[in-house]
Amino acid sequence: MTGNASPRIDQAFFKRMMDEVSIFGATAAGGLCRLTASPEDGAARDWLAGVLKAAGFRVVVDRVGNMFGILDIAGPGAPVVLAGSHLDSQPFGGRFDGAYGVVAAIAAATAVRDAVANGKRRPAYNVGVVNWTNEEGSRFAPSTLGSNVFAGKLEAEVALRAKDAKGVSLGEALAAIGYSGAEQPPRHVAAYIEAHIEQGPSLEREGKTIGVVEGNWGTVKYEVEFLGKAAHTGPTPMAQRRDALLPAAELVLFVRELSNRTGGALLSSVGRMDIAPNSTNVVAERVRLFVEFRDRDTARLDDACARFEDKVRLLGRDGVSVNMVHTVNRRPGLFDAALADLIEAIAAARGYSRMRLHTVAGHDAVPLASVLPSAMLFVPSVDGISHNEAEFTSMEDLVAGADVLAGVLCRLAFAGD
Amino acid sequence: MTGNASPRIDQAFFKRMMDEVSIFGATAAGGLCRLTASPEDGAARDWLAGVLKAAGFRVVVDRVGNMFGILDIAGPGAPVVLAGSHLDSQPFGGRFDGAYGVVAAIAAATAVRDAVANGKRRPAYNVGVVNWTNEEGSRFAPSTLGSNVFAGKLEAEVALRAKDAKGVSLGEALAAIGYSGAEQPPRHVAAYIEAHIEQGPSLEREGKTIGVVEGNWGTVKYEVEFLGKAAHTGPTPMAQRRDALLPAAELVLFVRELSNRTGGALLSSVGRMDIAPNSTNVVAERVRLFVEFRDRDTARLDDACARFEDKVRLLGRDGVSVNMVHTVNRRPGLFDAALADLIEAIAAARGYSRMRLHTVAGHDAVPLASVLPSAMLFVPSVDGISHNEAEFTSMEDLVAGADVLAGVLCRLAFAGD
Repeated sequence: MTGNASPRIDQAFFKRMMDEVSIFGATAAGGLCRLTASPEDGAARDWLAGVLKAAGFRVVVDRVGNMFGILDIAGPGAPVVLAGSHLDSQPFGGRFDGAYGVVAAIAAATAVRDAVANGKRRPAYNVGVVNWTNEEGSRFAPSTLGSNVFAGKLEAEVALRAKDAKGVSLGEALAAIGYSGAEQPPRHVAAYIEAHIEQGPSLEREGKTIGVVEGNWGTVKYEVEFLGKAAHTGPTPMAQRRDALLPAAELVLFVRELSNRTGGALLSSVGRMDIAPNSTNVVAERVRLFVEFRDRDTARLDDACARFEDKVRLLGRDGVSVNMVHTVNRRPGLFDAALADLIEAIAAARGYSRMRLHTVAGHDAVPLASVLPSAMLFVPSVDGISHNEAEFTSMEDLVAGADVLAGVLCRLAFAGD
Repeated sequence: MTGNASPRIDQAFFKRMMDEVSIFGATAAGGLCRLTASPEDGAARDWLAGVLKAAGFRVVVDRVGNMFGILDIAGPGAPVVLAGSHLDSQPFGGRFDGAYGVVAAIAAATAVRDAVANGKRRPAYNVGVVNWTNEEGSRFAPSTLGSNVFAGKLEAEVALRAKDAKGVSLGEALAAIGYSGAEQPPRHVAAYIEAHIEQGPSLEREGKTIGVVEGNWGTVKYEVEFLGKAAHTGPTPMAQRRDALLPAAELVLFVRELSNRTGGALLSSVGRMDIAPNSTNVVAERVRLFVEFRDRDTARLDDACARFEDKVRLLGRDGVSVNMVHTVNRRPGLFDAALADLIEAIAAARGYSRMRLHTVAGHDAVPLASVLPSAMLFVPSVDGISHNEAEFTSMEDLVAGADVLAGVLCRLAFAGD
């Protein structure tokens, strides 16, 4: 290994960026509300573009607002090794989910650039940073929207037509904040590495600093809509009511029961339920539930889905009809094994404790893994808390992850030398 | 009975008013969305003020936006016999709920005025029309807000501070549409009569045109809040989740079960449930349920409430806490018996079929009944449908109710002569 293959990040630069990016959409409770293409997201994007340009990156914004910053350390035509994540957040999310991966990527890429400048050899690949649009899926569906478009799994036209709850399209919202780009994303991407907080308790429980993510759990999502009939909750006789909330409530409990019968191995949730008209004295006419199942085991996941679909069909009765749409069907999958080995080797070489695990949550690295070598590294989440303003990871762990990322990027830039 | 004691309404005038008032907040499906103190409500109020002034009424707007139109047929100092209802609607309500009672009151009061002008005797009381603010309670709590303030059961200051879901106070909203009045409401009100659609199936089922409302059912309302903890629906282990939606779902089913065990005699509902953050991939942190029980039988109602409160307390477990607020406790009550008899007598004299019943829904007449002689008359609701854009009552039945109202007002204006 050459001397410039083990760069260290500039910790002061990294910390300053973490502080700065946390300002946009900051909540009083120390979290973030930075929904995709909101004014807060626009401000964070402006900040990112400024940081990238000041550090010498060439900035590219594609049609769906994905932002790329490239350092042409191998020359303008060379393939790029990308690292990044996303700057959008949940409505009451934490400061680390996504933003960490973007900031770590900037720190890592600039460390590689500086190491190259101080070294003798020329790298084979350029390095770059990416901020994917709408990873969270809170404002627009689907989640991991920008990375799905990049991976060719979702048409840009379709993505731009996605509407938020107020009927504003992603295309309109991006134009409003000035991030409806016209440029082509980088064509030759050699590999993608994403650093992220774990959002679960495993690393903390095992006392490890670096999670080497081998693959992803399967995730199946449904939207179920019950359609009853609005009526006054006063004079309408009980026998005449077509209350859409009753089967919805039954389904919420059934979804949990499906997890209970696997001893909690199958993860399940109903996180969102839209009720209309949702007025105190009107019988609910329409209830839409957003249901998720996640499992590492394909057979167990498929069994739960079959039972769930049967139950949904049975709940369309007593004058309430039901519609079910299968919105996500992400099978359990593996990341690039060689990249995972490389992450583990760099972590070991730098003296960080580590373990292998799978990601339960979806990440931009999942769609990318289907079209190019991709991998992820995790750092611990205190108490496993995420999608919550109380989400926290220590600065020491954040720096460790960025440091490993810098080592990985550098090795890849030199094409494994 | 003198000749001027049996006035008939001007049907063309009545129909024109029904058509005109249905414009403000009209929905594509033929219903209304005219929330309290919204721009649509403001337009309907402007229309009402215009109609009243054109017809010679003296218009008074009090601090909470209640609108009174008085015809001084007995002279400026005389007590007034009031009729009316409300112009606000549910988010997707019908054209008849409330607006009918206001329009019928205008038609009836002007008919009385014209009959007086053509007759020889001078009435003892003035007649008037009222549009009470925020009867529905959809935008601001509580429902029947304006009539409760008038009846001295709610402080105007408190009512004006009530906030909608966006944090706008009733005071601000009224000021924005120009209905934050400065005048005193009429001081001497001799009686209050409200014409309304039944909003239930009894009249239609029995084939009757006029419902003589003898009293009101008891109504008990609760707000129950479950407080869990937001977490990512992906990596968070099931055992670690504090999902506020689970006890909420269980409670929805339990509320229905309480009705089922009475064979449907006890009416119950959860019409509204506010879920936060209500994001697909976040475990629900906070769920607030709005629960109602209604019964004519006090003992059965109290029994249901006791069982409900016990259940709520039991649901505060597994790391989810619970708070319960008893928001409404309206005991079963009776309207003025002499007024009910008068309504029945006038309906009989005019050849309309009729029956006695109780109102299950709350109405402005209920708080008024506690401070002055009050009564209600109902006309049929097709299929018993209400709080729904499909709400409908035939023009023939609407006219019949307004006609009876005119007869009642006239008899009262002549102090029962």
